[in-house]
Amino acid sequence: MRQVAIAGIGKTPFGALAGRDLLSLAVEASRKCLENAQVAASRVEAFHLGNFAGPSFIGQNHLAPYVASGIGLQGVPATRFEAACASSGAAFFHAWAAVASGVYDLVLVTGVEKMTSQPTPKVAEILASAGDLDGEIRVGATFPALFAMIARRHMHQYGTTREHMAAVAVKNHANGALNPDAHLRKPITLEQAMAGKPVADPLTIYDCSLVSDGAAAVLLAPLEIARDMAPKPVRVLGLAQTSDHVALDRKDDITVFPAVRVAGEKAYRMAGVTPRDIEFAEIHDCFTIAEIVAIEDLGFVAKGEGGPYTAAGCTGLHSERPVNTSGGLKAKGHPVGATGVGQLCDVVLQIRGEAGERQVGRNRLGLAQNLGGSGATAVVTILGGE
Amino acid sequence: MRQVAIAGIGKTPFGALAGRDLLSLAVEASRKCLENAQVAASRVEAFHLGNFAGPSFIGQNHLAPYVASGIGLQGVPATRFEAACASSGAAFFHAWAAVASGVYDLVLVTGVEKMTSQPTPKVAEILASAGDLDGEIRVGATFPALFAMIARRHMHQYGTTREHMAAVAVKNHANGALNPDAHLRKPITLEQAMAGKPVADPLTIYDCSLVSDGAAAVLLAPLEIARDMAPKPVRVLGLAQTSDHVALDRKDDITVFPAVRVAGEKAYRMAGVTPRDIEFAEIHDCFTIAEIVAIEDLGFVAKGEGGPYTAAGCTGLHSERPVNTSGGLKAKGHPVGATGVGQLCDVVLQIRGEAGERQVGRNRLGLAQNLGGSGATAVVTILGGE
Repeated sequence: MRQVAIAGIGKTPFGALAGRDLLSLAVEASRKCLENAQVAASRVEAFHLGNFAGPSFIGQNHLAPYVASGIGLQGVPATRFEAACASSGAAFFHAWAAVASGVYDLVLVTGVEKMTSQPTPKVAEILASAGDLDGEIRVGATFPALFAMIARRHMHQYGTTREHMAAVAVKNHANGALNPDAHLRKPITLEQAMAGKPVADPLTIYDCSLVSDGAAAVLLAPLEIARDMAPKPVRVLGLAQTSDHVALDRKDDITVFPAVRVAGEKAYRMAGVTPRDIEFAEIHDCFTIAEIVAIEDLGFVAKGEGGPYTAAGCTGLHSERPVNTSGGLKAKGHPVGATGVGQLCDVVLQIRGEAGERQVGRNRLGLAQNLGGSGATAVVTILGGE
Repeated sequence: MRQVAIAGIGKTPFGALAGRDLLSLAVEASRKCLENAQVAASRVEAFHLGNFAGPSFIGQNHLAPYVASGIGLQGVPATRFEAACASSGAAFFHAWAAVASGVYDLVLVTGVEKMTSQPTPKVAEILASAGDLDGEIRVGATFPALFAMIARRHMHQYGTTREHMAAVAVKNHANGALNPDAHLRKPITLEQAMAGKPVADPLTIYDCSLVSDGAAAVLLAPLEIARDMAPKPVRVLGLAQTSDHVALDRKDDITVFPAVRVAGEKAYRMAGVTPRDIEFAEIHDCFTIAEIVAIEDLGFVAKGEGGPYTAAGCTGLHSERPVNTSGGLKAKGHPVGATGVGQLCDVVLQIRGEAGERQVGRNRLGLAQNLGGSGATAVVTILGGE
């Protein structure tokens, strides 16, 4: 296997982008990425598109050649990867494998979702299709309801509190306020977060990520080739994609994401590092409880300690282990298919030292964790500077 | 790159299968495949699911872990690949790359679609989402209309006739009648085909493929490992996936599928063979004209000769170059996401000598061609016996 690097990144702002369609978003992020790497479109050998539900959101399917043609890629394999909210994480994982194993040198991976043109009830219905339709959704569950059950059980088993979850929201809003590409740039207080409008008890509006439009792209290349390219290459040191049951009721313990745990273990082993070595991370906080569960399952803290650790400020921007310096899905936004690659762009910005006002000091080794559904897909990636 | 083989195949019947859901179809084909290869589910290292529009047809998204869990696969990367009607061709292409390059040994590739639970107008709308929504579909085009334009132009440029297209239908119906797993097992006469109810002039009901339910699966393994397994391994000698514009109006000449031409050239070069060497083929006859265009673009005949060649009987079951011995999409059926892998299963059956009443004599080297939309995706695969 060859060593692989991210040789270029590009993204659009995330937000409710009226007047922007899926194609223009995906093309903008992709072209910015090629420009960032100073690579002509004609050199790209394969195109991987991460997209969750374009056909449902905008009516257009067969999106990979549709976007590839818009970018100006010609004739290359153009394939859409779908793994719910981990769609572009999965697209990246398969691109890494193809470059590492020598199938291609340059692969462009773009994630995109256009969500805000649908009314909220329709958005909720489309998102719910990533759960188990017969067992969960048709009996009335939505994703906020599923994560509310996870939160309630976590509170019961470990003493996690609503304050712990609110602390995740406060931190991510504070970080998002420093990110010019974030959907929400509005700091909030703990009091505000605690007084949020209920969505699915115990989760309030401040515990839920945003419905956003946006796109993000990365260019993968063998490290040796990336070293001759314009930006400082960022190495893919470890990664894994794993799966689990879609339905929560098939799981022994809903306070654990086994797919995240296994993907993390595999990624650490591949990178030759331990959870302690990870200096900062982008975590899939589709709900505040998801960030708490994930930092436990990734071994940043012991099981049950995620809430107190966050409330103590240990994941803040200038703390021992910054989590979601971008603002996370909570404040940066969550255009589903763009989220996985968007996280990678944010880790790359930190490693390159280009994160502006939210730049962290210890920026050599970062991790991104992308989750599909209520844990049926996980992709964990560890990136490092040279 | 390692040599790769198909070590097992499995499929459900194709048809209007009332009472069968997507999950049960995908699980049946996958389990039959593992049983055929005599491999335990626990040995599978990755799961690739080809599916075009499950979320639109049945409301369930995040289908790869959903099906993987049903099969009994545990924790493996489970990813859905979408490339319109070439979805499972694309899933297969990426699985081949992963096995050839040593990322995995055993990858299960399953294609599935459940279409018949939706009323016909809804099916037409879902299929149309694989075309260009803004440029083609919203102004009234459907896939029969797009292929009718291709047919009309082919008739104009090359003198192709309705009889030539009807000859494709007659042949494929005759072959389908010999296939116990085919959707339609009803031979038709040229007179019947010529008198078919019009769909989009010049295409009649006999020029259009079927709306079907079904699933198909193949297990990929390195040749060295496949040799120790139960069935005779069938080697993947050459393959390629390519892309082109989604919208027909972006093309210089709509009587050509450039993606098929390029994929064919790449696959021939990789296999070290010429079009003349191909003994039989499964061709993507979503419409009769598509089979004519494809056998030209694959170099079986010169451009414009596909119609006369077919009408002369040269692609019949016991002719010089049997095409669609399974009955093709026209008679075997076209459960969109299952079609690409279904074609591969049929080529494997011929190479193994297990094709029953439709077995061909020259069965050493076969080709499968899978098309997405009106030509924006193509996957061409050449398989051979040892």
